[in-house]
Amino acid sequence: MRRIQCTVAYDGTLFSGYQIQPNARTVQEEIEKALTRLHGGKEVKIHASGRTDASVHAKGQVFHFDTTSTISVSQLKRGANALLPEDIVVVDTKETAEDFHARFSVKKKEYRYKVLCSKSRDVFLRHYMHHVPYELDRKVMKEAIKGIIGTHDFTSFCSAKTEIEDKVRTIYEAEIIEEGDVLTFRFVGNGFLYNMVRILVGTLLDLGNGKSFTKDISGMLEAKNRTLTGKTAPGHGLYLWKVYYDN
Amino acid sequence: MRRIQCTVAYDGTLFSGYQIQPNARTVQEEIEKALTRLHGGKEVKIHASGRTDASVHAKGQVFHFDTTSTISVSQLKRGANALLPEDIVVVDTKETAEDFHARFSVKKKEYRYKVLCSKSRDVFLRHYMHHVPYELDRKVMKEAIKGIIGTHDFTSFCSAKTEIEDKVRTIYEAEIIEEGDVLTFRFVGNGFLYNMVRILVGTLLDLGNGKSFTKDISGMLEAKNRTLTGKTAPGHGLYLWKVYYDN
Repeated sequence: MRRIQCTVAYDGTLFSGYQIQPNARTVQEEIEKALTRLHGGKEVKIHASGRTDASVHAKGQVFHFDTTSTISVSQLKRGANALLPEDIVVVDTKETAEDFHARFSVKKKEYRYKVLCSKSRDVFLRHYMHHVPYELDRKVMKEAIKGIIGTHDFTSFCSAKTEIEDKVRTIYEAEIIEEGDVLTFRFVGNGFLYNMVRILVGTLLDLGNGKSFTKDISGMLEAKNRTLTGKTAPGHGLYLWKVYYDN
Repeated sequence: MRRIQCTVAYDGTLFSGYQIQPNARTVQEEIEKALTRLHGGKEVKIHASGRTDASVHAKGQVFHFDTTSTISVSQLKRGANALLPEDIVVVDTKETAEDFHARFSVKKKEYRYKVLCSKSRDVFLRHYMHHVPYELDRKVMKEAIKGIIGTHDFTSFCSAKTEIEDKVRTIYEAEIIEEGDVLTFRFVGNGFLYNMVRILVGTLLDLGNGKSFTKDISGMLEAKNRTLTGKTAPGHGLYLWKVYYDN
């Protein structure tokens, strides 16, 4: 038995998200279908680093699966790419340790969120960046995002629906990269709660747009109250950028 | 009566082309529907600089229409953009001369064709660039494209279906812009025949891929024979970039 570690990119536009669900097109189902075909119909189940929501993209989602096949990792990559739909691509395949787990072995994850700041819509970027037609105070946002770095309870920045109890996460890096009209919000952390990046970005955009909150970022964190932060930014600006492991 | 000149961008992916046809989603129909609604149901007919095919994009398509409405050009732009689907956007509106005609007044047109040169597919660019996974000799293509500049009979570089008799066109500029993995083939001319840019690019890519033809570019032009040139490159790499007028 060999354990294979795969990195995939996908365009989230036409998916109902990563995780398999009935009557919906999902990334997991498309990948499992392709790998099962590649194994002559023998069912393959994959385990990813985590889920992504509908319309959320991935540049570097990672999953693992087990196989008894002797196919080489490069043949596997080529074969899977020939069978996968055009909105999923295998970027890398390698053989990994038996005790590697795409979810439980994660050390850090990087998410990026892209915002197009322009008066006009851009028809070519409509599925790939969140369009903000109003003025944003970039200085205010760049100052505020620093407050997120560190180990905090992120209750205020996660969906109220979250069932996970421990909402403490460590953010190692948080910055805004400016390239002309495009702002990229970049976050690296040891883990992220449900909707956390989208609520962080939504709150930062509200701050940049001059909305006044009763508390600043550190006050929001302390309050542990979702109603004190901004709205959830739309999914199509979000990218699961990279998953970091020890190997 | 006022004549209005509009510049629009559109993502050609989900259109069966520019021109209205039954049982198909077309750019012209979507724009006329929006403008008709904006005129309280009074039918508006538009006249564009030319057609684009299915999956071909536009950064700067131009059309005109006549109106008796007193709506300002900025209100018109805003109103149309609110009514248009998300894959069409009005970039500019202005009042123009009575004798201006979006098609007959054209001085020059600029087309660009984008090619992604990489081993792997890119899921985010699949509708916006033609993916070439094999090696291309950029020097060969950059040398060959120069042969297109000037006034020539382009019979060899237009669809055999073309009914237009005069196939002489003048190309003022033809170049390949390199940006990492992306090659942009840029053409400025006084007019382009049906499929002309796509056949030019298809032929240049064949040359870059080492395919041997019986003739070089000037020989192909002289021969006036479509069977001596390369295949038609796919539509989704092509952009109607800009239309030039005297005004």
